[in-house]
Amino acid sequence: MSSHRVVALCGGIGGAKLALGLYRVLPADALTVIVNTGDDFEHLGLRISPDVDTVLYTLAGLADTEVGWGRRHETWTFMQVLATLGGETWFRLGDGDLALHVERTRRLAGGETLSTIIADLARHLEIAAQVVPMSDDVVSTRVGTPQGEIEFQDYFVRQRCAPRVTSLRFAGAGSARPAPGVVAALQGHAPAAIIICPSNPYLSIDPILAVPGVRGSLRSCAAPVIAVTPLVGGQAIKGPTGKIMTELGVPLTPASIVEHYSGLIDGFVLDARDRGVASAIDLPLKVSDTVMATLDDRERLAQEVLDFAAALRARKPRS
Amino acid sequence: MSSHRVVALCGGIGGAKLALGLYRVLPADALTVIVNTGDDFEHLGLRISPDVDTVLYTLAGLADTEVGWGRRHETWTFMQVLATLGGETWFRLGDGDLALHVERTRRLAGGETLSTIIADLARHLEIAAQVVPMSDDVVSTRVGTPQGEIEFQDYFVRQRCAPRVTSLRFAGAGSARPAPGVVAALQGHAPAAIIICPSNPYLSIDPILAVPGVRGSLRSCAAPVIAVTPLVGGQAIKGPTGKIMTELGVPLTPASIVEHYSGLIDGFVLDARDRGVASAIDLPLKVSDTVMATLDDRERLAQEVLDFAAALRARKPRS
Repeated sequence: MSSHRVVALCGGIGGAKLALGLYRVLPADALTVIVNTGDDFEHLGLRISPDVDTVLYTLAGLADTEVGWGRRHETWTFMQVLATLGGETWFRLGDGDLALHVERTRRLAGGETLSTIIADLARHLEIAAQVVPMSDDVVSTRVGTPQGEIEFQDYFVRQRCAPRVTSLRFAGAGSARPAPGVVAALQGHAPAAIIICPSNPYLSIDPILAVPGVRGSLRSCAAPVIAVTPLVGGQAIKGPTGKIMTELGVPLTPASIVEHYSGLIDGFVLDARDRGVASAIDLPLKVSDTVMATLDDRERLAQEVLDFAAALRARKPRS
Repeated sequence: MSSHRVVALCGGIGGAKLALGLYRVLPADALTVIVNTGDDFEHLGLRISPDVDTVLYTLAGLADTEVGWGRRHETWTFMQVLATLGGETWFRLGDGDLALHVERTRRLAGGETLSTIIADLARHLEIAAQVVPMSDDVVSTRVGTPQGEIEFQDYFVRQRCAPRVTSLRFAGAGSARPAPGVVAALQGHAPAAIIICPSNPYLSIDPILAVPGVRGSLRSCAAPVIAVTPLVGGQAIKGPTGKIMTELGVPLTPASIVEHYSGLIDGFVLDARDRGVASAIDLPLKVSDTVMATLDDRERLAQEVLDFAAALRARKPRS
């Protein structure tokens, strides 16, 4: 009996687009999304999980697809008033978004785990997919710069990725446990495919892989593991992936991504614009248009990735 | 050298109206408002000070005078989203109002005192008056009912004052210290007048009087202490004052208010509609229209109270 469960690993915006495509083309409850929490931080006394929230909003159809982050129909009264009170406003929190942060913070303080809270919030948002934070333990991405190590949101939002990145560290990852459901999703239920979404490999996927047990589960799982390129035409569509690769001395080419996931993935989805570098990649390839401007694009790419997985599954020996 | 400082004791809505009148007719920095914090509570993980916030909003010209509480131009996205997440919505928090609660909670958690935070917020809101919470220590009004003791906001908001009140208790008051500035305002700076605003004597003023040192300061201060009636035509204009008096077996008449403040006040402002019971009150009286529907009403009543204080001051022996 073959499973139809599909597991996606992702960060925020870009990865969530493919997660939405998968959610729409798969049976409603067939998808598990394991989400990066290395970006999580405490701000204004609230626990904020930017990537998890982006996935929730995206799957619930609540995401602001024009702005690219946050909720649709958002209002900003909180921020406006906070500014008049002398509060910190560099990290913008919409009024509706705040409800999630306040509720999460309250429930965490009451002793619930992040994964329990997220599962319950997903239920309230009528999301049939499983949305699972990578860990219930705190893992914090720290960005090394020539001026010293800084917190991720300081780098990403306050300083708009301006500092040169010299290193990346996932503080707490060494002793973090995968959230309940993570290892089960990767192994126990024998997924039909595991898909590494086109998220930033360094900032969004590496924190997930740094949680003990995840990397081993990917290596040993029976299902094909497929990464979808975050580079299009030798560039990241959005965000600092290209800048970071250059700063870390990694050639800005899809082959570097394949190398980065070496030993973990069984197939790679290359953007058609990078067809010229296909010969440099020694792994089953699917060449596709990976730019997901529309909802149709997301569904089409998701279906192509699933078809690619099915083809690889036919070839992959059971471990 | 006589001081021109005036001290007002008040709770929320009704009291804040007179505080605003005083603020407008006095020199900008001449007013100190000592505010009830017995209504304060923690909700959704946030520290909320309803009466202090009402006074801040009122003095800053930000209060919603139509609805009677909260901020003008408020939005409600947070509440709407919170409802979709299964959060508690019985206590309504506007998006702009939330900024105050989040900021206060964050700063309290950082070790600042409530009075320091409120003074700083008042400065940001460009309020020249001193707004001082009665205490930096937690004092919680508990309402005795036939079904047992309940928290104040449970009684006041969730149950809309429906339970019969059998007793009132100010938990923590016995060991609370007056906030810095409270005793100084009442004694040290030798105020020109102390005014007990037309707030609920049982719910809004008694908690302030229960803080050790406050009652004694009122008794011994050189300035005339004047209470403004919260009853008009033998009824409370708004809120549960009348209902509570009846439930506690106290005759619903201004004389009961005078009796309640016995030994503390030097004069009483009676509403013109209650002129008929004036003979039952053995204290200097000012008969006035105490209904403050408009801003003009507030200024007029404030000026009348100040004039009454001036007249009493001429008579009161220095203690």
